[in-house]
Amino acid sequence: MEFVQQLRTLGEHRCFGGIQRFIEHDSHEIGLPMRISVFLPPQAALARVPALVYLAGLTCNEETFAVKAGAQQLAAELGMALIAPDTSPRGADVPGEAESWDFGVGAGFYLDATRAPWAAHWRMESYLLNELLPLLGDRLPVDTQRVGLTGHSTGGHGALTLALRHPGRFRSVSALAPVCAPTRCPWGRKALAGYLGADSGHWAEHDASSLMSRQKAAPYPQGILIDQGLEDKFLSEQLHPHLFEAACLAVGQPLTMRRHIGYDHGYYFVQSFMADHLRHHHRILFQPS
Amino acid sequence: MEFVQQLRTLGEHRCFGGIQRFIEHDSHEIGLPMRISVFLPPQAALARVPALVYLAGLTCNEETFAVKAGAQQLAAELGMALIAPDTSPRGADVPGEAESWDFGVGAGFYLDATRAPWAAHWRMESYLLNELLPLLGDRLPVDTQRVGLTGHSTGGHGALTLALRHPGRFRSVSALAPVCAPTRCPWGRKALAGYLGADSGHWAEHDASSLMSRQKAAPYPQGILIDQGLEDKFLSEQLHPHLFEAACLAVGQPLTMRRHIGYDHGYYFVQSFMADHLRHHHRILFQPS
Repeated sequence: MEFVQQLRTLGEHRCFGGIQRFIEHDSHEIGLPMRISVFLPPQAALARVPALVYLAGLTCNEETFAVKAGAQQLAAELGMALIAPDTSPRGADVPGEAESWDFGVGAGFYLDATRAPWAAHWRMESYLLNELLPLLGDRLPVDTQRVGLTGHSTGGHGALTLALRHPGRFRSVSALAPVCAPTRCPWGRKALAGYLGADSGHWAEHDASSLMSRQKAAPYPQGILIDQGLEDKFLSEQLHPHLFEAACLAVGQPLTMRRHIGYDHGYYFVQSFMADHLRHHHRILFQPS
Repeated sequence: MEFVQQLRTLGEHRCFGGIQRFIEHDSHEIGLPMRISVFLPPQAALARVPALVYLAGLTCNEETFAVKAGAQQLAAELGMALIAPDTSPRGADVPGEAESWDFGVGAGFYLDATRAPWAAHWRMESYLLNELLPLLGDRLPVDTQRVGLTGHSTGGHGALTLALRHPGRFRSVSALAPVCAPTRCPWGRKALAGYLGADSGHWAEHDASSLMSRQKAAPYPQGILIDQGLEDKFLSEQLHPHLFEAACLAVGQPLTMRRHIGYDHGYYFVQSFMADHLRHHHRILFQPS
């Protein structure tokens, strides 16, 4: 008998004519229950709709985007689903998993750990690509052939790296204040060493700037959108947008990199530019394929 | 030497071209530090702007509206400030103040308590009218002659009752899922008895439906807007919109009472209709006086 994955609805709220739903399921990739938030626009009552997946940053969870980003109103107009997974496994009880705000719980970095004790559960890349998206396509009115990917901060790192590591899985990509070169910043080096081991030879596979620089042609010819606040306190030490910009230039990847005077790293910045990201993905996802 | 009230900025974030600010000050009406959130639209850099005051409901604080209501984008377009005070004194150490979620801390009900031990600090009505609004008019580019008042749940009770008790102080009024007749619901009866005493003769002064029914003419001839979700679990026992509707009808007060299929009591409901409330207040506040 085939095992049928249960999606447990934890909460469901009418919102701008659509439904904001919070879901839990038992993930076989993670080996633990995982939570996600899904916004289904009114159009999803009639047909499958394209989806935008949002990856959140350090300390966030599956609720952050739904509560703070203000994306539902325009998604309801445009007819796009919004999917926000949690940022890491929870409940694994790995020793030290909650000691740091930038590693372990709430800081999965959207990769598969290869080093003990993290490798058993910290499998966010396989979870998202091989389990969650197929599951949602199977169980919700979401068109998995038309999925865009975005994210904020370390979630922006996740968006850029997963979009480059899995060509064809995402039609459109953007990011807000992303970690663009994790092999060269403290957050990234700590996470890559912890999850992948001290041998930095494996790290470049999870560095958006390195991945882009090794492309033979523009992987997203319709363009990538990045927004960055200039009062972001993490900008100079952690984010390095200029390295991703240089890599895109070298490869011929069209990139709209906007730098905004006065904006910081938080969700008042994210919500200020969220509509532009929805429109970027909408423009690409709603083109005939 | 005149005492100059200090507004201490706890946080400040660029948002949709304006500023989302969190402020603390030592309130002489409350006798304790009080926190508020203020959104100043880009237009406030040039001239005083009209303001909408939002009163939040049970368990909320000054951050709730700023984080969850999604009002900043349209306020930035329309050129309106948004002001959200906290929902009660905090730090008074009144015995039992935190025992209930519907009384005491986080549940000030926007009135002045007359009964010990609450009367010393629970003075939300005097605080808002006599201290906070004059202070903000003095220290921020807000036009205190053009202020609208709205609120959610018990904050909707606050909005309707304060607008009726203080004619001329607010030009426009609206509410989302308000407690319309607190003398007839459990939340209201508990709060009114606790703050004002068991003699219910004084309670009607803080009951929006009673206050409206005693008007000689429509106090807000340009109309009051109320939105109410029909899946709101508090609707039948706590909110009683039909009593306020009947009182408005008897007095000739224009009321737009919208009932929405499928919506519950929370902020996914609030944000879904927030833009209509901003436009309601904008229409009235931007008329020549």
